[in-house]
Amino acid sequence: MNGLPELIMDFGRRARAASRVLARASTEQRNAGVLAMADAILAAEGEILEANAADLAAARQKGISGAMLERLTLSPSRVAAMARGVSEVAALPDPVGEVMRCWTRPNGLEISKVRVPIGVVGIIYESRPNVTSDAAVLCLKTGNATILRGGSESIRSNVAIAAALSKGLSSAGLPADSIQLVPVTDRDAVALLCAMDRYLDVIVPRGGKGLIETVVRQARMPVIKHYDGICALYVDRTADQNMAEAIVLNAKCQRPGVCNAVETVLVHRDVLPAFLEKTGRALLHRGVELRCDGEVLEAAAKVCGPEGKLAAAVEEDFRTEFLDMILAVKAVGCLEEALDHIEEHGSRHSDGIITEDKVLAERFLQEVDSATVYWNASTRFTDGGEFGFGAEIGISTDKLHARGPMALEELTTYKYQLRGTGQIRE
Amino acid sequence: MNGLPELIMDFGRRARAASRVLARASTEQRNAGVLAMADAILAAEGEILEANAADLAAARQKGISGAMLERLTLSPSRVAAMARGVSEVAALPDPVGEVMRCWTRPNGLEISKVRVPIGVVGIIYESRPNVTSDAAVLCLKTGNATILRGGSESIRSNVAIAAALSKGLSSAGLPADSIQLVPVTDRDAVALLCAMDRYLDVIVPRGGKGLIETVVRQARMPVIKHYDGICALYVDRTADQNMAEAIVLNAKCQRPGVCNAVETVLVHRDVLPAFLEKTGRALLHRGVELRCDGEVLEAAAKVCGPEGKLAAAVEEDFRTEFLDMILAVKAVGCLEEALDHIEEHGSRHSDGIITEDKVLAERFLQEVDSATVYWNASTRFTDGGEFGFGAEIGISTDKLHARGPMALEELTTYKYQLRGTGQIRE
Repeated sequence: MNGLPELIMDFGRRARAASRVLARASTEQRNAGVLAMADAILAAEGEILEANAADLAAARQKGISGAMLERLTLSPSRVAAMARGVSEVAALPDPVGEVMRCWTRPNGLEISKVRVPIGVVGIIYESRPNVTSDAAVLCLKTGNATILRGGSESIRSNVAIAAALSKGLSSAGLPADSIQLVPVTDRDAVALLCAMDRYLDVIVPRGGKGLIETVVRQARMPVIKHYDGICALYVDRTADQNMAEAIVLNAKCQRPGVCNAVETVLVHRDVLPAFLEKTGRALLHRGVELRCDGEVLEAAAKVCGPEGKLAAAVEEDFRTEFLDMILAVKAVGCLEEALDHIEEHGSRHSDGIITEDKVLAERFLQEVDSATVYWNASTRFTDGGEFGFGAEIGISTDKLHARGPMALEELTTYKYQLRGTGQIRE
Repeated sequence: MNGLPELIMDFGRRARAASRVLARASTEQRNAGVLAMADAILAAEGEILEANAADLAAARQKGISGAMLERLTLSPSRVAAMARGVSEVAALPDPVGEVMRCWTRPNGLEISKVRVPIGVVGIIYESRPNVTSDAAVLCLKTGNATILRGGSESIRSNVAIAAALSKGLSSAGLPADSIQLVPVTDRDAVALLCAMDRYLDVIVPRGGKGLIETVVRQARMPVIKHYDGICALYVDRTADQNMAEAIVLNAKCQRPGVCNAVETVLVHRDVLPAFLEKTGRALLHRGVELRCDGEVLEAAAKVCGPEGKLAAAVEEDFRTEFLDMILAVKAVGCLEEALDHIEEHGSRHSDGIITEDKVLAERFLQEVDSATVYWNASTRFTDGGEFGFGAEIGISTDKLHARGPMALEELTTYKYQLRGTGQIRE
């Protein structure tokens, strides 16, 4: 497209200018902006639903149906929920301006490490139109300008929502350019955003592996991403088998399609029959397909009989995020074997141990290199809300800057302010 | 080179394995490793100096001379200083294991945010061989494995130093693979390291713009870099002119070749004659060339006369890291003009204001988007040692993860440990 590079660069310039105004804005001004954004969504309900109807018509014409169409669909109650989700962010504590540390040097120089907005945040996402308002409001709350680039299926809805948000901000005296949506959905726009490190301080891709890979390959600025959640639970020899049953069933079945659901269970072979007798049967009864290594399959065939879906696991099953009622099960002989398996097959998201042995538990918590590690609890708690953070922009499987639930604090950085009385370096 | 991809991948695998052992090591074990590294450098003095002599001979043959040859040169006293630099790190406080925050959820789940090593750190650097031990020891102290890739000029010295460090670690019972030096100096090795996000958690390039640009373009993992230090000082209308003189002279002349030296001075036009009378003349007297905008040049010609090097500045001078006895000077009419100039021309490293007006100073400290912002002090304090951090691996001009002096704490990340009693999600 002719002029696209200039368009994207202009977005960047305007976002940077807006970010400078936001960095000066007080907590009260930003919270007023958040509430105005919520009001503006409600006021624009008609335009948003009209745009959404056009998206839905185009999607149906392209043959999209089922869950994807459902995710794309807005309704008056969903628009109201969107506005409510935005307005709730006003009540969350503001991390910006927090003095993280303050000390005075022997020469009298006073050093403060202060939490500040990142600047300009790029969000690249697919399908669901409510990401537009969810992401934009968390960025605005923390004093960041946002450039949003959503998927083609929801482009009309996204444009209408972003226009409402900008209008709301204007009415609250904040720059409309604080939130900008790229109205172009081809891949060239992503490439141009990824190259614009002068104006974009970080990119957060939210979507499938193809999108994330594209961004990782092209981005010149930091990327905070969320790859797979191949979460594992290790059921130790000393595990309380009732607890194991409750945790494994919850971690697998309560919502199998999400990233913190368990995908692999490692069982100490001393308790394999006991585990299969209780948890194995319960999983099969709930309709979970068990993909078992040889040892587990043999034992399960005896213990569980023909009452459910049992299959032989292939190596790939232990590297797969099923996001479905499927669980890979493997027998191990000791903690070390479980640790090695997780190191080799896991995705550094959420992993847990079920054991009554405190020493073993603490080793697991120390040695597993994942964002969130659990002792005797379901992996499903890896979530900004469940952590008490109030809202999240995603779960980072990266190690730097943001790891695990990425909430308001992770949308800030810091700077050092030094106050002197004429100090010079000797 | 045939087999290079396999070689680099093998480095990665071994570094990851070593990092798992380091993550389990206690503070005492790691500190013992640090001291053993220092001892091993002293014990290998002969090998290191012999390797260095070969590097120097090769460098002379290539026509390298002057400052570069000087930076490359080791001597018994420099090797001793290198060992001392390493051993001093043992005494620094250990950030690993610190519980950054701990809270209990209403369901009884206990959440701890704990500081942990990053894992495997890649350091890509040029020329000076002491970077090998400086970088390696800071990584080891914080429980990280390191893959080092130095420049071709110091390759023999680097190999000898890294071999000594590994030997020292072995003698202290830590993995020799904790520190590995890539013995290949062509650019392909850099490309392969940049692609290996499975094993390398972060890359820190230390060197010229060409090297940093190569890494930024290719790296799939986070990069923490140090671009220019185009530092500015704004001398406000209310500045104490004696203080301005002391600070500007210190920031420009005390060590002009470093990143936190000042490169641009912005002067409020109301005090331009007073500034030139004192500071301008003192700078010229010290041999600093002043590259002035039209207004400053005209005033300086009157005030300072023909006693020094005065030149008309071109736009590029305000975007240049001179690293030399050259200073760009510009007149501005107000704080906003200074802020705009810094936003447009600066490099987000270190910038300061000299003023007696506290309100103006606080605005500057809040609004300038740089790693370190100063009120009434020299920019030369942007340094890990001067901050009281004890040691640093560089000054980051990035905004995420590490900003400003990058010391031990910035070589760590965190994870969440959740301890439960069978909690499941409702």
